[in-house]
Amino acid sequence: MDAPSANSPGRFITLEGGEGAGKSTQIQVVKAYLEDRGIDVIVTREPGGTPAGQEIRSLLVSGDKDKWSPLSETLLILADRAAHLERVIRPALAAGKYVVCDRFFDSTRAYQGVAGGLGLEVIHNLQQVVLDKTLPDVTLLLDIPPEKGLQRAQERGGELRFESKTLAYHQTLRQAFLDFAAQEPDRMAVIDADRDIEVVSADIRSILDDRLNV
Amino acid sequence: MDAPSANSPGRFITLEGGEGAGKSTQIQVVKAYLEDRGIDVIVTREPGGTPAGQEIRSLLVSGDKDKWSPLSETLLILADRAAHLERVIRPALAAGKYVVCDRFFDSTRAYQGVAGGLGLEVIHNLQQVVLDKTLPDVTLLLDIPPEKGLQRAQERGGELRFESKTLAYHQTLRQAFLDFAAQEPDRMAVIDADRDIEVVSADIRSILDDRLNV
Repeated sequence: MDAPSANSPGRFITLEGGEGAGKSTQIQVVKAYLEDRGIDVIVTREPGGTPAGQEIRSLLVSGDKDKWSPLSETLLILADRAAHLERVIRPALAAGKYVVCDRFFDSTRAYQGVAGGLGLEVIHNLQQVVLDKTLPDVTLLLDIPPEKGLQRAQERGGELRFESKTLAYHQTLRQAFLDFAAQEPDRMAVIDADRDIEVVSADIRSILDDRLNV
Repeated sequence: MDAPSANSPGRFITLEGGEGAGKSTQIQVVKAYLEDRGIDVIVTREPGGTPAGQEIRSLLVSGDKDKWSPLSETLLILADRAAHLERVIRPALAAGKYVVCDRFFDSTRAYQGVAGGLGLEVIHNLQQVVLDKTLPDVTLLLDIPPEKGLQRAQERGGELRFESKTLAYHQTLRQAFLDFAAQEPDRMAVIDADRDIEVVSADIRSILDDRLNV
Protein backbone atom coordinates (compact mmCIF):
# COMPACT_ATOMS: atom_id res chain seq x y z
CA MET A 1 0.00 0.00 0.00
CA ASP A 2 2.73 2.47 -0.90
CA ALA A 3 0.77 4.12 -3.72
CA PRO A 4 -1.12 7.24 -2.60
CA SER A 5 -4.87 6.68 -2.14
CA ALA A 6 -7.79 9.12 -2.21
CA ASN A 7 -7.44 9.14 1.59
CA SER A 8 -3.99 10.73 1.55
CA PRO A 9 -2.49 12.30 3.67
CA GLY A 10 -4.41 10.07 6.10
CA ARG A 11 -5.04 6.37 5.87
CA PHE A 12 -8.17 4.39 6.40
CA ILE A 13 -8.08 0.96 8.06
CA THR A 14 -11.16 -1.18 8.64
CA LEU A 15 -11.76 -4.31 10.70
CA GLU A 16 -14.35 -6.79 9.53
CA GLY A 17 -15.67 -10.19 10.54
CA GLY A 18 -18.62 -12.01 12.05
CA GLU A 19 -19.85 -11.87 15.63
CA GLY A 20 -17.36 -12.74 18.36
CA ALA A 21 -14.31 -12.55 16.09
CA GLY A 22 -12.56 -10.21 18.52
CA LYS A 23 -12.70 -6.95 16.57
CA SER A 24 -13.16 -4.77 19.67
CA THR A 25 -10.07 -6.26 21.27
CA GLN A 26 -7.87 -6.18 18.19
CA ILE A 27 -8.83 -2.66 17.17
CA GLN A 28 -7.00 -1.50 20.29
CA VAL A 29 -3.95 -3.40 19.10
CA VAL A 30 -4.06 -1.53 15.79
CA LYS A 31 -4.44 1.77 17.64
CA ALA A 32 -1.45 1.07 19.90
CA TYR A 33 0.64 -0.06 16.93
CA LEU A 34 0.05 3.24 15.14
CA GLU A 35 0.42 5.43 18.22
CA ASP A 36 3.76 3.76 19.00
CA ARG A 37 4.88 5.14 15.64
CA GLY A 38 3.76 8.69 16.48
CA ILE A 39 0.67 8.56 14.29
CA ASP A 40 -2.48 10.46 15.22
CA VAL A 41 -5.26 7.84 15.28
CA ILE A 42 -9.04 7.95 15.45
CA VAL A 43 -10.84 4.75 16.43
CA THR A 44 -14.46 4.64 15.42
CA ARG A 45 -17.21 2.21 14.45
CA GLU A 46 -20.29 1.62 12.38
CA PRO A 47 -23.12 1.93 12.79
CA GLY A 48 -23.12 4.80 15.29
CA GLY A 49 -19.90 6.73 14.65
CA THR A 50 -21.61 10.13 15.09
CA PRO A 51 -24.14 11.40 17.67
CA ALA A 52 -26.88 11.45 15.01
CA GLY A 53 -25.71 8.06 13.81
CA GLN A 54 -26.15 6.61 17.29
CA GLU A 55 -29.86 7.31 16.92
CA ILE A 56 -29.81 5.27 13.71
CA ARG A 57 -27.89 2.50 15.49
CA SER A 58 -30.62 2.39 18.13
CA LEU A 59 -33.25 1.88 15.44
CA LEU A 60 -31.19 -0.90 13.89
CA VAL A 61 -30.46 -2.94 16.99
CA SER A 62 -33.83 -2.65 18.73
CA GLY A 63 -37.07 -4.45 17.99
CA ASP A 64 -37.99 -7.61 16.16
CA LYS A 65 -35.42 -9.18 13.84
CA ASP A 66 -37.77 -8.68 10.88
CA LYS A 67 -38.48 -5.06 11.77
CA TRP A 68 -36.46 -3.83 8.79
CA SER A 69 -36.33 -5.39 5.36
CA PRO A 70 -32.79 -5.81 4.00
CA LEU A 71 -33.31 -2.75 1.75
CA SER A 72 -34.55 -0.48 4.56
CA GLU A 73 -31.79 -1.74 6.80
CA THR A 74 -29.19 -1.00 4.14
CA LEU A 75 -30.50 2.53 3.65
CA LEU A 76 -30.41 3.19 7.40
CA ILE A 77 -26.85 1.90 7.56
CA LEU A 78 -25.91 4.11 4.62
CA ALA A 79 -27.54 7.16 6.23
CA ASP A 80 -25.31 6.50 9.21
CA ARG A 81 -22.29 5.93 6.96
CA ALA A 82 -22.89 9.16 5.04
CA ALA A 83 -22.90 11.16 8.30
CA HIS A 84 -19.84 9.28 9.54
CA LEU A 85 -17.90 9.94 6.34
CA GLU A 86 -18.85 13.60 6.13
CA ARG A 87 -18.35 14.50 9.77
CA VAL A 88 -15.69 12.14 11.11
CA ILE A 89 -13.80 10.03 8.57
CA ARG A 90 -13.07 12.46 5.72
CA PRO A 91 -12.15 15.43 7.95
CA ALA A 92 -9.76 13.19 9.92
CA LEU A 93 -8.12 11.78 6.77
CA ALA A 94 -7.78 15.28 5.33
CA ALA A 95 -6.00 16.31 8.55
CA GLY A 96 -3.50 13.47 8.04
CA LYS A 97 -4.91 11.17 10.68
CA TYR A 98 -5.27 7.41 10.47
CA VAL A 99 -8.86 6.28 10.87
CA VAL A 100 -9.46 2.79 12.24
CA CYS A 101 -13.06 1.69 11.89
CA ASP A 102 -14.87 -1.30 13.38
CA ARG A 103 -17.00 -2.47 10.43
CA PHE A 104 -17.47 -0.54 7.19
CA PHE A 105 -18.76 -1.25 3.71
CA ASP A 106 -17.72 -4.90 3.56
CA SER A 107 -20.14 -5.60 6.43
CA THR A 108 -22.98 -4.09 4.39
CA ARG A 109 -21.98 -6.20 1.41
CA ALA A 110 -21.82 -9.36 3.53
CA TYR A 111 -24.77 -8.86 5.90
CA GLN A 112 -27.34 -7.13 3.71
CA GLY A 113 -26.02 -7.95 0.24
CA VAL A 114 -25.20 -11.64 0.59
CA ALA A 115 -26.66 -13.03 3.83
CA GLY A 116 -29.70 -10.70 3.66
CA GLY A 117 -30.28 -11.62 0.03
CA LEU A 118 -30.37 -8.09 -1.39
CA GLY A 119 -27.60 -8.82 -3.87
CA LEU A 120 -24.23 -7.16 -4.29
CA GLU A 121 -25.29 -5.10 -7.32
CA VAL A 122 -28.00 -3.25 -5.38
CA ILE A 123 -25.57 -2.67 -2.53
CA HIS A 124 -22.93 -1.44 -4.94
CA ASN A 125 -25.28 1.00 -6.65
CA LEU A 126 -26.39 2.48 -3.34
CA GLN A 127 -22.96 2.51 -1.73
CA GLN A 128 -21.24 4.15 -4.68
CA VAL A 129 -23.12 7.40 -4.05
CA VAL A 130 -22.25 7.37 -0.35
CA LEU A 131 -18.64 6.23 -0.47
CA ASP A 132 -17.59 8.32 -3.46
CA LYS A 133 -13.79 7.85 -3.39
CA THR A 134 -13.39 7.01 0.29
CA LEU A 135 -12.48 3.33 0.44
CA PRO A 136 -10.34 1.53 3.01
CA ASP A 137 -6.59 1.32 2.33
CA VAL A 138 -6.31 -1.81 4.44
CA THR A 139 -9.03 -4.15 5.72
CA LEU A 140 -8.30 -6.73 8.39
CA LEU A 141 -10.74 -9.63 8.21
CA LEU A 142 -10.90 -11.53 11.50
CA ASP A 143 -12.09 -14.96 10.47
CA ILE A 144 -13.55 -17.46 12.91
CA PRO A 145 -15.91 -20.43 12.53
CA PRO A 146 -19.37 -19.09 13.38
CA GLU A 147 -20.12 -21.64 16.08
CA LYS A 148 -17.06 -20.44 18.00
CA GLY A 149 -17.69 -16.75 17.33
CA LEU A 150 -21.30 -17.00 18.45
CA GLN A 151 -20.27 -18.78 21.61
CA ARG A 152 -17.86 -15.92 22.39
CA ALA A 153 -20.53 -13.33 21.59
CA GLN A 154 -23.02 -15.06 23.87
CA GLU A 155 -20.55 -15.13 26.73
CA ARG A 156 -20.01 -11.39 26.21
CA GLY A 157 -23.73 -10.50 26.03
CA GLY A 158 -24.81 -7.34 24.25
CA GLU A 159 -26.77 -6.56 21.11
CA LEU A 160 -28.42 -9.72 19.93
CA ARG A 161 -30.31 -8.90 16.76
CA PHE A 162 -27.84 -10.48 14.34
CA GLU A 163 -26.66 -12.99 16.87
CA SER A 164 -30.13 -14.52 17.01
CA LYS A 165 -29.99 -15.57 13.35
CA THR A 166 -29.35 -19.21 12.43
CA LEU A 167 -25.95 -20.81 12.18
CA ALA A 168 -26.46 -21.22 8.41
CA TYR A 169 -26.88 -17.44 8.16
CA HIS A 170 -23.57 -16.89 9.92
CA GLN A 171 -21.85 -19.48 7.72
CA THR A 172 -23.07 -17.61 4.62
CA LEU A 173 -21.74 -14.42 6.15
CA ARG A 174 -18.33 -15.92 6.83
CA GLN A 175 -18.04 -17.23 3.29
CA ALA A 176 -19.06 -13.82 1.89
CA PHE A 177 -16.24 -12.09 3.77
CA LEU A 178 -13.76 -14.74 2.62
CA ASP A 179 -14.93 -14.31 -0.97
CA PHE A 180 -14.40 -10.54 -0.78
CA ALA A 181 -10.90 -11.11 0.56
CA ALA A 182 -10.13 -13.49 -2.29
CA GLN A 183 -11.32 -10.88 -4.79
CA GLU A 184 -9.29 -8.04 -3.27
CA PRO A 185 -6.16 -9.51 -1.71
CA ASP A 186 -4.27 -6.20 -1.98
CA ARG A 187 -6.76 -4.47 0.28
CA MET A 188 -7.97 -7.29 2.53
CA ALA A 189 -5.94 -9.53 4.81
CA VAL A 190 -7.52 -12.64 6.34
CA ILE A 191 -6.51 -13.34 9.92
CA ASP A 192 -7.31 -16.63 11.63
CA ALA A 193 -9.05 -15.31 14.76
CA ASP A 194 -9.60 -18.76 16.25
CA ARG A 195 -6.34 -18.59 18.19
CA ASP A 196 -5.09 -17.00 21.40
CA ILE A 197 -5.55 -13.22 21.48
CA GLU A 198 -1.80 -12.61 21.65
CA VAL A 199 -1.11 -14.76 18.61
CA VAL A 200 -3.81 -12.94 16.63
CA SER A 201 -2.41 -9.57 17.75
CA ALA A 202 1.10 -10.52 16.65
CA ASP A 203 -0.29 -11.54 13.27
CA ILE A 204 -2.03 -8.18 12.92
CA ARG A 205 1.15 -6.26 13.78
CA SER A 206 3.04 -8.24 11.18
CA ILE A 207 0.40 -7.50 8.52
CA LEU A 208 0.55 -3.80 9.38
CA ASP A 209 4.35 -3.92 9.05
CA ASP A 210 3.96 -5.30 5.53
CA ARG A 211 1.09 -3.16 4.34
CA LEU A 212 1.50 0.22 5.96
CA ASN A 213 5.26 0.68 5.97
CA VAL A 214 5.17 3.22 8.80
CA MET B 1 -54.25 7.70 -17.57
CA ASP B 2 -56.17 4.93 -19.34
CA ALA B 3 -53.05 2.91 -20.20
CA PRO B 4 -52.26 0.22 -17.62
CA SER B 5 -49.38 1.10 -15.28
CA ALA B 6 -47.07 -1.10 -13.24
CA ASN B 7 -49.46 -0.38 -10.36
CA SER B 8 -52.39 -2.16 -11.98
CA PRO B 9 -54.93 -3.35 -10.81
CA GLY B 10 -54.56 -0.57 -8.22
CA ARG B 11 -53.65 3.04 -8.80
CA PHE B 12 -51.22 5.27 -7.01
CA ILE B 13 -52.00 8.95 -6.42
CA THR B 14 -49.65 11.33 -4.65
CA LEU B 15 -50.12 14.85 -3.29
CA GLU B 16 -47.16 17.20 -3.30
CA GLY B 17 -46.42 20.81 -2.43
CA GLY B 18 -44.71 23.09 0.05
CA GLU B 19 -45.67 23.73 3.67
CA GLY B 20 -49.21 24.96 4.30
CA ALA B 21 -50.47 24.15 0.81
CA GLY B 22 -53.43 22.24 2.26
CA LYS B 23 -52.42 18.69 1.42
CA SER B 24 -53.91 17.19 4.61
CA THR B 25 -57.28 18.78 3.88
CA GLN B 26 -57.38 17.96 0.19
CA ILE B 27 -56.24 14.37 0.61
CA GLN B 28 -59.57 13.74 2.35
CA VAL B 29 -61.31 15.18 -0.71
CA VAL B 30 -59.48 12.70 -2.92
CA LYS B 31 -60.41 9.87 -0.56
CA ALA B 32 -64.10 10.82 -0.56
CA TYR B 33 -64.10 11.22 -4.34
CA LEU B 34 -62.83 7.67 -4.78
CA GLU B 35 -65.00 6.10 -2.08
CA ASP B 36 -68.08 7.70 -3.64
CA ARG B 37 -67.24 5.62 -6.70
CA GLY B 38 -67.00 2.39 -4.69
CA ILE B 39 -63.21 2.25 -4.76
CA ASP B 40 -61.23 0.77 -1.88
CA VAL B 41 -58.80 3.51 -0.79
CA ILE B 42 -55.78 3.66 1.47
CA VAL B 43 -54.64 7.10 2.63
CA THR B 44 -51.06 7.20 3.80
CA ARG B 45 -48.10 9.56 4.05
CA GLU B 46 -44.35 9.91 4.01
CA PRO B 47 -42.26 9.87 5.99
CA GLY B 48 -43.83 7.56 8.56
CA GLY B 49 -46.26 5.34 6.63
CA THR B 50 -45.32 2.21 8.62
CA PRO B 51 -44.74 1.63 12.37
CA ALA B 52 -41.00 1.22 11.78
CA GLY B 53 -41.07 4.25 9.47
CA GLN B 54 -42.56 6.37 12.23
CA GLU B 55 -39.33 5.84 14.15
CA ILE B 56 -37.45 7.19 11.13
CA ARG B 57 -39.86 10.12 10.92
CA SER B 58 -39.07 10.94 14.56
CA LEU B 59 -35.36 11.05 13.77
CA LEU B 60 -36.01 13.34 10.81
CA VAL B 61 -38.22 15.92 12.48
CA SER B 62 -36.43 16.19 15.84
CA GLY B 63 -33.23 17.98 16.67
CA ASP B 64 -31.26 20.77 15.09
CA LYS B 65 -32.00 21.69 11.49
CA ASP B 66 -28.43 20.76 10.51
CA LYS B 67 -28.57 17.46 12.34
CA TRP B 68 -28.65 15.52 9.05
CA SER B 69 -26.75 16.34 5.91
CA PRO B 70 -28.87 16.25 2.75
CA LEU B 71 -27.38 12.86 1.86
CA SER B 72 -28.06 11.27 5.26
CA GLU B 73 -31.52 12.78 5.27
CA THR B 74 -32.24 11.36 1.82
CA LEU B 75 -31.10 7.90 2.86
CA LEU B 76 -33.30 7.99 5.96
CA ILE B 77 -36.26 9.06 3.84
CA LEU B 78 -35.52 6.26 1.39
CA ALA B 79 -35.27 3.71 4.23
CA ASP B 80 -38.74 4.80 5.24
CA ARG B 81 -39.95 4.72 1.62
CA ALA B 82 -38.59 1.21 1.06
CA ALA B 83 -40.52 -0.08 4.09
CA HIS B 84 -43.62 1.82 3.00
CA LEU B 85 -43.48 0.41 -0.53
CA GLU B 86 -42.80 -3.15 0.58
CA ARG B 87 -45.30 -3.33 3.40
CA VAL B 88 -48.11 -0.91 2.51
CA ILE B 89 -48.13 0.52 -1.01
CA ARG B 90 -47.29 -2.46 -3.23
CA PRO B 91 -49.50 -4.98 -1.34
CA ALA B 92 -52.44 -2.53 -1.54
CA LEU B 93 -51.93 -1.89 -5.27
CA ALA B 94 -51.64 -5.62 -5.92
CA ALA B 95 -54.98 -6.09 -4.12
CA GLY B 96 -56.58 -3.57 -6.49
CA LYS B 97 -56.74 -0.69 -4.02
CA TYR B 98 -56.08 2.95 -4.75
CA VAL B 99 -53.27 4.35 -2.65
CA VAL B 100 -53.32 8.08 -1.92
CA CYS B 101 -50.06 9.30 -0.41
CA ASP B 102 -49.22 12.65 1.21
CA ARG B 103 -45.72 13.30 -0.22
CA PHE B 104 -43.65 10.81 -2.18
CA PHE B 105 -40.60 10.89 -4.41
CA ASP B 106 -41.16 14.37 -5.84
CA SER B 107 -40.69 15.77 -2.32
CA THR B 108 -37.33 14.05 -2.07
CA ARG B 109 -36.34 15.46 -5.45
CA ALA B 110 -37.46 18.97 -4.47
CA TYR B 111 -36.36 19.14 -0.80
CA GLN B 112 -33.13 17.15 -0.80
CA GLY B 113 -32.26 17.19 -4.50
CA VAL B 114 -32.88 20.81 -5.41
CA ALA B 115 -33.40 22.91 -2.25
CA GLY B 116 -30.94 20.79 -0.23
CA GLY B 117 -28.36 20.98 -3.01
CA LEU B 118 -27.71 17.27 -3.40
CA GLY B 119 -28.58 17.30 -7.09
CA LEU B 120 -31.23 15.40 -9.00
CA GLU B 121 -28.82 12.84 -10.41
CA VAL B 122 -27.75 11.60 -6.97
CA ILE B 123 -31.40 11.44 -5.90
CA HIS B 124 -32.31 9.59 -9.08
CA ASN B 125 -29.55 7.02 -8.65
CA LEU B 126 -30.58 6.30 -5.08
CA GLN B 127 -34.33 6.37 -5.69
CA GLN B 128 -34.21 4.08 -8.68
CA VAL B 129 -33.19 1.15 -6.48
CA VAL B 130 -35.99 1.85 -4.00
CA LEU B 131 -38.85 2.72 -6.35
CA ASP B 132 -38.17 0.03 -8.91
CA LYS B 133 -41.33 0.26 -11.07
CA THR B 134 -43.67 1.78 -8.50
CA LEU B 135 -44.27 5.36 -9.64
CA PRO B 136 -47.37 7.52 -9.11
CA ASP B 137 -50.06 7.35 -11.79
CA VAL B 138 -51.29 10.83 -10.87
CA THR B 139 -49.60 13.53 -8.79
CA LEU B 140 -51.54 16.55 -7.57
CA LEU B 141 -49.22 19.49 -6.94
CA LEU B 142 -50.80 22.01 -4.57
CA ASP B 143 -49.02 25.24 -5.43
CA ILE B 144 -49.03 28.26 -3.14
CA PRO B 145 -46.66 31.24 -2.74
CA PRO B 146 -44.35 30.29 0.16
CA GLU B 147 -45.10 33.39 2.24
CA LYS B 148 -48.77 32.41 2.32
CA GLY B 149 -48.10 28.71 2.86
CA LEU B 150 -45.72 29.39 5.73
CA GLN B 151 -48.25 31.70 7.36
CA ARG B 152 -50.85 28.93 7.21
CA ALA B 153 -48.35 26.38 8.55
CA GLN B 154 -47.45 28.68 11.45
CA GLU B 155 -51.10 29.14 12.35
CA ARG B 156 -51.47 25.36 12.36
CA GLY B 157 -48.35 24.68 14.50
CA GLY B 158 -46.67 21.28 14.33
CA GLU B 159 -43.36 20.01 13.03
CA LEU B 160 -41.13 22.97 12.37
CA ARG B 161 -37.87 21.66 11.04
CA PHE B 162 -38.44 22.58 7.39
CA GLU B 163 -40.68 25.47 8.25
CA SER B 164 -37.79 27.22 10.00
CA LYS B 165 -35.78 27.51 6.76
CA THR B 166 -35.58 30.84 4.93
CA LEU B 167 -38.14 32.17 2.50
CA ALA B 168 -35.59 31.83 -0.32
CA TYR B 169 -35.35 28.12 0.47
CA HIS B 170 -39.09 27.73 0.14
CA GLN B 171 -39.12 29.71 -3.11
CA THR B 172 -36.51 27.34 -4.54
CA LEU B 173 -38.67 24.44 -3.42
CA ARG B 174 -41.77 25.84 -5.07
CA GLN B 175 -39.95 26.38 -8.35
CA ALA B 176 -38.56 22.84 -8.23
CA PHE B 177 -42.05 21.35 -7.94
CA LEU B 178 -43.29 23.56 -10.79
CA ASP B 179 -40.34 22.47 -12.93
CA PHE B 180 -41.12 18.80 -12.31
CA ALA B 181 -44.73 19.41 -13.30
CA ALA B 182 -43.65 21.14 -16.51
CA GLN B 183 -41.42 18.15 -17.32
CA GLU B 184 -44.12 15.55 -16.65
CA PRO B 185 -47.50 17.10 -17.45
CA ASP B 186 -49.11 13.71 -18.06
CA ARG B 187 -48.42 12.62 -14.50
CA MET B 188 -48.50 15.90 -12.58
CA ALA B 189 -51.32 18.43 -12.34
CA VAL B 190 -50.66 21.86 -10.85
CA ILE B 191 -53.45 23.22 -8.66
CA ASP B 192 -53.53 26.84 -7.50
CA ALA B 193 -53.91 26.28 -3.74
CA ASP B 194 -54.06 29.98 -2.92
CA ARG B 195 -57.85 30.00 -3.13
CA ASP B 196 -60.78 29.03 -0.93
CA ILE B 197 -60.69 25.38 0.14
CA GLU B 198 -63.92 24.58 -1.69
CA VAL B 199 -62.64 26.03 -4.96
CA VAL B 200 -59.44 24.02 -4.68
CA SER B 201 -61.44 20.87 -3.89
CA ALA B 202 -63.67 21.36 -6.93
CA ASP B 203 -60.57 21.76 -9.07
CA ILE B 204 -59.15 18.50 -7.71
CA ARG B 205 -62.39 16.60 -8.41
CA SER B 206 -62.38 17.91 -11.95
CA ILE B 207 -58.75 16.81 -12.47
CA LEU B 208 -59.58 13.36 -11.12
CA ASP B 209 -62.55 13.17 -13.53
CA ASP B 210 -60.17 13.86 -16.42
CA ARG B 211 -57.27 11.69 -15.35
CA LEU B 212 -58.72 8.68 -13.60
CA ASN B 213 -61.86 8.00 -15.59
CA VAL B 214 -63.54 6.08 -12.74
